[in-house]
Amino acid sequence: MAQKIPVGILGATGTVGQRFIQLLEDHPWFEVAWLAASDRSAGLPYADATKWKLTSPIPARIAAMKVSPAGPADAPKVIFASVDAAIAQELEPRFAAAGCAVITNSSAFRMQADVPLVVPEINADHLALIEQQSWRKQSGGFIVTNSNCSVMGLVMALAPLQPFGLEKVLAVTMQAVSGAGYPGVASMDILGNVIPYVPKEEEKMEAEAKKMLGRLAGPVITDAGFAISAHCNRVPVLDGHTESVSIKLRVTATREQVLAAWVGFDDRNQISGLGLPSAPKHFVRYDDRPDRPQPRLDVDTGAGMTAVTGRLRKCGVLDWKFTVLAHNVIRGAAGAAVLNAELLKVKGYLGR
Amino acid sequence: MAQKIPVGILGATGTVGQRFIQLLEDHPWFEVAWLAASDRSAGLPYADATKWKLTSPIPARIAAMKVSPAGPADAPKVIFASVDAAIAQELEPRFAAAGCAVITNSSAFRMQADVPLVVPEINADHLALIEQQSWRKQSGGFIVTNSNCSVMGLVMALAPLQPFGLEKVLAVTMQAVSGAGYPGVASMDILGNVIPYVPKEEEKMEAEAKKMLGRLAGPVITDAGFAISAHCNRVPVLDGHTESVSIKLRVTATREQVLAAWVGFDDRNQISGLGLPSAPKHFVRYDDRPDRPQPRLDVDTGAGMTAVTGRLRKCGVLDWKFTVLAHNVIRGAAGAAVLNAELLKVKGYLGR
Amino acid sequence: MAQKIPVGILGATGTVGQRFIQLLEDHPWFEVAWLAASDRSAGLPYADATKWKLTSPIPARIAAMKVSPAGPADAPKVIFASVDAAIAQELEPRFAAAGCAVITNSSAFRMQADVPLVVPEINADHLALIEQQSWRKQSGGFIVTNSNCSVMGLVMALAPLQPFGLEKVLAVTMQAVSGAGYPGVASMDILGNVIPYVPKEEEKMEAEAKKMLGRLAGPVITDAGFAISAHCNRVPVLDGHTESVSIKLRVTATREQVLAAWVGFDDRNQISGLGLPSAPKHFVRYDDRPDRPQPRLDVDTGAGMTAVTGRLRKCGVLDWKFTVLAHNVIRGAAGAAVLNAELLKVKGYLGR
Amino acid sequence: MAQKIPVGILGATGTVGQRFIQLLEDHPWFEVAWLAASDRSAGLPYADATKWKLTSPIPARIAAMKVSPAGPADAPKVIFASVDAAIAQELEPRFAAAGCAVITNSSAFRMQADVPLVVPEINADHLALIEQQSWRKQSGGFIVTNSNCSVMGLVMALAPLQPFGLEKVLAVTMQAVSGAGYPGVASMDILGNVIPYVPKEEEKMEAEAKKMLGRLAGPVITDAGFAISAHCNRVPVLDGHTESVSIKLRVTATREQVLAAWVGFDDRNQISGLGLPSAPKHFVRYDDRPDRPQPRLDVDTGAGMTAVTGRLRKCGVLDWKFTVLAHNVIRGAAGAAVLNAELLKVKGYLGR
Repeated sequence: MAQKIPVGILGATGTVGQRFIQLLEDHPWFEVAWLAASDRSAGLPYADATKWKLTSPIPARIAAMKVSPAGPADAPKVIFASVDAAIAQELEPRFAAAGCAVITNSSAFRMQADVPLVVPEINADHLALIEQQSWRKQSGGFIVTNSNCSVMGLVMALAPLQPFGLEKVLAVTMQAVSGAGYPGVASMDILGNVIPYVPKEEEKMEAEAKKMLGRLAGPVITDAGFAISAHCNRVPVLDGHTESVSIKLRVTATREQVLAAWVGFDDRNQISGLGLPSAPKHFVRYDDRPDRPQPRLDVDTGAGMTAVTGRLRKCGVLDWKFTVLAHNVIRGAAGAAVLNAELLKVKGYLGR
Repeated sequence: MAQKIPVGILGATGTVGQRFIQLLEDHPWFEVAWLAASDRSAGLPYADATKWKLTSPIPARIAAMKVSPAGPADAPKVIFASVDAAIAQELEPRFAAAGCAVITNSSAFRMQADVPLVVPEINADHLALIEQQSWRKQSGGFIVTNSNCSVMGLVMALAPLQPFGLEKVLAVTMQAVSGAGYPGVASMDILGNVIPYVPKEEEKMEAEAKKMLGRLAGPVITDAGFAISAHCNRVPVLDGHTESVSIKLRVTATREQVLAAWVGFDDRNQISGLGLPSAPKHFVRYDDRPDRPQPRLDVDTGAGMTAVTGRLRKCGVLDWKFTVLAHNVIRGAAGAAVLNAELLKVKGYLGR
Repeated sequence: MAQKIPVGILGATGTVGQRFIQLLEDHPWFEVAWLAASDRSAGLPYADATKWKLTSPIPARIAAMKVSPAGPADAPKVIFASVDAAIAQELEPRFAAAGCAVITNSSAFRMQADVPLVVPEINADHLALIEQQSWRKQSGGFIVTNSNCSVMGLVMALAPLQPFGLEKVLAVTMQAVSGAGYPGVASMDILGNVIPYVPKEEEKMEAEAKKMLGRLAGPVITDAGFAISAHCNRVPVLDGHTESVSIKLRVTATREQVLAAWVGFDDRNQISGLGLPSAPKHFVRYDDRPDRPQPRLDVDTGAGMTAVTGRLRKCGVLDWKFTVLAHNVIRGAAGAAVLNAELLKVKGYLGR
Repeated sequence: MAQKIPVGILGATGTVGQRFIQLLEDHPWFEVAWLAASDRSAGLPYADATKWKLTSPIPARIAAMKVSPAGPADAPKVIFASVDAAIAQELEPRFAAAGCAVITNSSAFRMQADVPLVVPEINADHLALIEQQSWRKQSGGFIVTNSNCSVMGLVMALAPLQPFGLEKVLAVTMQAVSGAGYPGVASMDILGNVIPYVPKEEEKMEAEAKKMLGRLAGPVITDAGFAISAHCNRVPVLDGHTESVSIKLRVTATREQVLAAWVGFDDRNQISGLGLPSAPKHFVRYDDRPDRPQPRLDVDTGAGMTAVTGRLRKCGVLDWKFTVLAHNVIRGAAGAAVLNAELLKVKGYLGR
């Protein structure tokens, strides 16, 4: 078999960074060759630099790997990133300028006009934006982003329904604590509680959904033309963002047509047949049991890469209402970036 | 001081029955004189018949009181009830036919045309329906109901806004486990989880909201004329239903006008100035902190009788969105019935 | 490959019954051929009779299988059982009398003198008791039990230390809610709470530990000769019983010797080298991180069949203290019975 | 009525600092006149400097009070303190040297030979140590401490049993998250989990218990002469440390004698009859229900100042075993210090 592509992880000690390591262990195309984190961690063996919170152990090879400073000097040319927006704002362009493919979960560049915000099944074609990036023109490097973890499940449920014409979308989230990283949400704040606020999350959901579901027209994205409103809540759940969604469609659709659109999307999405290793068998799975999906029971559907919908029924205000669940750290963060990287590879953006 | 009115509690051993006991202890007008529960409990001292789940102890006098069979034979003429719908369907008419004022939290008769569904501040005038009841005509007895615990917080937030004309209401609940009674929700189902379904709850919310906010026209209620849609979810919270609400108004209102409507309702609701002992100082309290209301911190506002709203902001799909919290067992159940009883007393329905 | 042995599950719809199905799916030696539950379930397809609570779906073949009445009439000759003690008391002898090998997690017969209470690694030799059973003599049938879920982790930590002579054992449990089955512990009782009581659990732990660690002497078990005291608590954890244990040994042992005893037990336990499919690679794994084991992170160690110990340190009252964690539904219930069945098979008790 | 004594709070923005404010609001003897916290907070109104986490609102007067720098310059002469040990180590002596009575919950000086570690009911006489302090001799200032929150409930259960001669004590804690302050324990660490480790807690429990229960002999404390061993665990509970305790006594005591010792302690403890405002009616309350005490239901017993014991039964290893619960932030921290201050006042240490 061909040699694997060496990749680096920027923000390797965080909640998403740990998932990158977990998902890339035994990846058929990529191999973790470089780990970077804050200056505090640089120089330490990874196992000493991180507070590992996953149930699977740190892979032995990774545990012993020394954490590098967070600069492009000795980094590989393919970088997975997940760092705070302010840090990403400063660091990610340095990597792109140095010729790296920066595949990032950070929020800093998601809404920049020439940066694609990609869910491969939905808008793989948006990758064309890369060619607009100044980094690309100078060094070959570029930045590709994936969405906020809360909007991911929503757009996965919505994308298959675009043929009916999305007109209005109202989503209320019940988000897991892992979405805030570690240490993140204090236990005193969330035990037996609901926090009806996640800073900046509603704005991100509304803006990112329209970009991801937008249309590439020449060198720019035209935002999808629906009205959208999000209410974001935090609940005492470890992993998995659950959302109550109401939608209005421009074209009348029956219940059967909506269900068929979800199921049928597996055969008509933008990566059908590409064989990307992290692409789930089912993009959306509809569960017809009356009390599903539930994060504890369903979050790992499709290895955490499938969105699970349920409870499709008529809405008294818009047309339809339903529940959607997606794994916020896998499909909503690390897994999203890995799938983007796989897409980039088959599209020839990773240099071989 | 005048002698207190002896009252009975039907369903005294349940979650709401326990709250009746707690709220009626030291009540200035009422005194618990009779407790009834299922046949299994009849004859036992109350302390042995119930699994008391409140942090305050069982009042000593009540603990020793013998549980009566659930029939009107030796019951007082004022009955607080909270039993399963099927049981209420059969039992409550027997008490009403025997001349009792049945003030019930049970759902069986809420939607019956001649039974008022009352929140005193909102629709005290609906009590006039009582005179339509056949029981009333025959024995003087009657049935008065309060709403489902999930719709209570919602209508409390909506009623002050009726002058703006409610056109559309979309509400997503995050409901506490105490709403399902005891034993109710199994811990294996809810620890670290969200259940996106509460049986029959959405239908109740939608129907009851329109009746409570409806208009008494002669001998009937005309439902309020808004479209409504509810999504009901259960979350791992002990007490307090939190709801994310979006609304569309017929008349344009500014943010200040909405806030003023909530605050001002204290002076213009249907029981302003009546001095009902359980009426809270504030019907709705608006909390302007960005992350409030929260059930753990705010559920006991106004001794559990105040609804707390927060996060009022523009909605991208309807006009306004906000969060509302109400105590599901106090304002949403036992306290609601006690307040109804107080209203009935001052209106002369309790015989003295 | 040889044909698999058909097995039945008595109590198939319960929490442990579901785990039997999960663990036996794709088992190399056994195949589920019969499912039985209460009369209420008999005749229904399994999927309709059970409230499935595992994250893996019901295997399709099992979902469609019809639930049988709980009698030996058409049952296979190998029965896995997990039913309430009172039901087991009546039912299990009927199966044994009908010639079945009853491999049970139920508590009814655990302490009966001629019934082995087995953890294969510890006391496989106790199986010899089977020959004392009247059922065995008459029909060939017999009953073999595994322990209570709380004592399992404890004896797994203690057995490797028997060479030092156990003198005193004090264990305090923090038990998961799944140990009480479904619906089991009410959410109103355990959210944000500790219940310092599990009915009959302390007595079971104390008696069963001494029988399992006892010595087979001719046709009887001589209980292990240590003093033991258990405190049992329920905590808001889904799976995994964590225990704080203090012990006094008859022979002085260093910390290194205790650790070596745990690690070395893999090579000198009673099934070393037998190749039982469900036997974990490590019977006990010692985790030297200061804050481990933790149920959320470590409960699935060894596919839920390994006990994890940690925090070994000097005890100011007895000699040593440590923490031990075991999966209460796998190693402490369904997995225990499956491992017992595997042992019975290789020892020739299952007829082929 | 006489003027109240002005007091300051050092560490006013923390979890314990907030409780100081709550407990001192409407205190008959003391009045909060000064609040200090870290440099980051100095100069801000208190409401802006703190993240208030109590269900009762910040008293209006306090909300507006400006936070002072953490030095004795303009501080009152009575200081309640609760800061990290390293900070206390440096700051508290400065206040004592400046003539302040430092009544602290911090751990820095608890084990210093001339610093009393006081629970008024148990060892009020230890206050005599104050006269040994160099600060006292120079400026009149001094330091008085209260114990770690985990050992508090334990010593409250043990003190009444000292007449029987404590020989051995083994305690296993299940500690609430508020014991770690705010933000303290991360939600990702504790949701649905047990952490079998609280840094330095076991050592504190063991040392502090022996000092508090020790005997004042001339100018020094002779530690109580029992063996003690603690296991400390963190559980997903908000407030209230629950402990499973086994003890061995030097003198044989019957169950009735143990119970009588707990009940009778109210009449023979070191502050019986002194009328300290924060002293609870019952120092220890024994709950004879089989499943009590429970933190959710019982933590506020005696306004959080009473320890609740339960489940007294024979121990198979030591003599007796039982459960004890105490409110870690009230009796185990802020309330402990307030009670110490009240004792100091009646003993004439606060200058009037």
